[in-house]
Amino acid sequence: MTDIRVLGVAGSLRHGSLNRALLRAAIKLAPAGLTIDSFELNDVPLYNGDVEAAGDPPGVTALKTAIRAADAVLFVTPEYNHGVPGVMKNAVDWASRPPRDAALNGKPVGIIGASPGQVGTARGQSQLRQAFEFTNSYCMAQPEILVFRAHEKFNDKGELTDAKTAELLGKYLEALRNWTLRFK
Amino acid sequence: MTDIRVLGVAGSLRHGSLNRALLRAAIKLAPAGLTIDSFELNDVPLYNGDVEAAGDPPGVTALKTAIRAADAVLFVTPEYNHGVPGVMKNAVDWASRPPRDAALNGKPVGIIGASPGQVGTARGQSQLRQAFEFTNSYCMAQPEILVFRAHEKFNDKGELTDAKTAELLGKYLEALRNWTLRFK
Amino acid sequence: MTDIRVLGVAGSLRHGSLNRALLRAAIKLAPAGLTIDSFELNDVPLYNGDVEAAGDPPGVTALKTAIRAADAVLFVTPEYNHGVPGVMKNAVDWASRPPRDAALNGKPVGIIGASPGQVGTARGQSQLRQAFEFTNSYCMAQPEILVFRAHEKFNDKGELTDAKTAELLGKYLEALRNWTLRFK
Amino acid sequence: MTDIRVLGVAGSLRHGSLNRALLRAAIKLAPAGLTIDSFELNDVPLYNGDVEAAGDPPGVTALKTAIRAADAVLFVTPEYNHGVPGVMKNAVDWASRPPRDAALNGKPVGIIGASPGQVGTARGQSQLRQAFEFTNSYCMAQPEILVFRAHEKFNDKGELTDAKTAELLGKYLEALRNWTLRFK
Repeated sequence: MTDIRVLGVAGSLRHGSLNRALLRAAIKLAPAGLTIDSFELNDVPLYNGDVEAAGDPPGVTALKTAIRAADAVLFVTPEYNHGVPGVMKNAVDWASRPPRDAALNGKPVGIIGASPGQVGTARGQSQLRQAFEFTNSYCMAQPEILVFRAHEKFNDKGELTDAKTAELLGKYLEALRNWTLRFK
Repeated sequence: MTDIRVLGVAGSLRHGSLNRALLRAAIKLAPAGLTIDSFELNDVPLYNGDVEAAGDPPGVTALKTAIRAADAVLFVTPEYNHGVPGVMKNAVDWASRPPRDAALNGKPVGIIGASPGQVGTARGQSQLRQAFEFTNSYCMAQPEILVFRAHEKFNDKGELTDAKTAELLGKYLEALRNWTLRFK
Repeated sequence: MTDIRVLGVAGSLRHGSLNRALLRAAIKLAPAGLTIDSFELNDVPLYNGDVEAAGDPPGVTALKTAIRAADAVLFVTPEYNHGVPGVMKNAVDWASRPPRDAALNGKPVGIIGASPGQVGTARGQSQLRQAFEFTNSYCMAQPEILVFRAHEKFNDKGELTDAKTAELLGKYLEALRNWTLRFK
Repeated sequence: MTDIRVLGVAGSLRHGSLNRALLRAAIKLAPAGLTIDSFELNDVPLYNGDVEAAGDPPGVTALKTAIRAADAVLFVTPEYNHGVPGVMKNAVDWASRPPRDAALNGKPVGIIGASPGQVGTARGQSQLRQAFEFTNSYCMAQPEILVFRAHEKFNDKGELTDAKTAELLGKYLEALRNWTLRFK
């Protein structure tokens, strides 16, 4: 059974973030033949073309390297102000930069997200998907994971306690595995 | 004649940025009765809810204070990866945060942008506008400024040399003045 | 007390549509000083530039006339396929057409919507708002009405039975009245 | 050499439409191993759930059948009011409907478009792509065809005269062929 290695990137820097908790749940629920490693965005600075011209900062090099090494990337995104958070988009902005063998080009991508409201990051996910048109990443269309009222679905330790969400997440990861294998 | 004070925010940290150049051009071309002050995003860090809980960083306090003091805000945005740059969205994410007298609530807003390609930031502007639905800012709909092939419209010193763009920019600022006065 | 006349347009042709039911609820819940008249889209054909060149069809003339006569327009939109329904967008496409005193130019606009799912038309509303940037309509940003799980909130006669939604709708219409008065 | 059959759908009913002309150009420029058949939307009525419940109208049945029979679908879309035209979205709304072997599910899709302005349908294309997330269609990300100032690129007979656009279109169709073959 081919092992698929997925890089998981949560778009929040907050320690107690629901989306970081969702990524941890995905790591635990990964089906046979799929492994998720988490990449922390703490060392990815705000994009600055002058900084880039002097050489990618270590956090950016690490991000690009990790994306290249992975078979697929799973973006776990909050929704802020009806859109993708600046923190998440900024990571994609760095990762999309040349050289020509750009990290995201031809890379299978999944997007999921959690929010306390009813919309469950639907608008944030839609905006984030638009970025992957440009980077020529292969963004899986369905199924979708929109974890609404997410604060009710994790316990105080940040563990997913909602059985329905866990089931959907397991199916999502199975689908992401199959999607990624299409492009092998 | 009522003097309208506009805060100009360019969504790029690069020194030679076309959008910073466009903001400088706007400052110069401001019509009678409108003054634009530029706010630099260099000291606005990546949004982090834990940092926020400990108190806004000085750059964020400065941003919120400057927005509150202004009659309107002019966002000058690049387009990266078919969307609003993380750097720009991150500033809005910070500015949108409580306390309840949020800086952007009820604030007149304009959006313009410049890019080297043909699209002239149309998609970046559309995404950025969506944020201002949530913040309840009053985003001017028309006219639009989409500076396409922008690298051909500024000289080596970053001065706007394209007469047509200068004319449109002047009219835009006149319209922004009238739009802002509606809400006084 | 100034009476504000609002034209209500539901973006569905189905007799039992939840969004038509939502519009009827809005008509009933309209606060003092605001009256909503419903416009039915049944006679607005698919947009065709050749047909338009020969003269607007009667249904289109009626739509444009009704918009012009109204102080504001309330669009009540379903969400289909993560976006605004073709039926709704088609009506806007016709209404946006010249002559230069276009019906939607400078017109205050509200958008609400209902769907059976959790997202409550968030993505449909975001797409529809983008149209009103172009038409230079004044689209109210907040509050929002996203009626999720809408099939549980109306009875068999299509009457709104959910008290919370009714309360939000009343407040929304009050806000739309105030928003419209700003532009009088 | 596997022959790929593509269904081409232009989102305009106007006889002299630039997007219909662009589709005709694509048919002519189709590379070896790819054939495009055009589907005309004239007989696809506005979506109405009551009509659907009584049975798909003939134009809708024809559309669904043609999509099912094709290996891929090429949508050629105008941009109206910063978004996808109602005429185009309406066709997708019908095509997305059950039965469960929905015509668009798992179908490779390409999107191109032409407009007289500078933006070349960028915003219309972005909105249309969002529909295919829901339908689980496999939408090709790159390359893109944004035919700006399109009225200058076709002659009076509606023939593509711009060599650069013709070259890009040929490459686009080659890429669409390869994209479609991935899913065979």
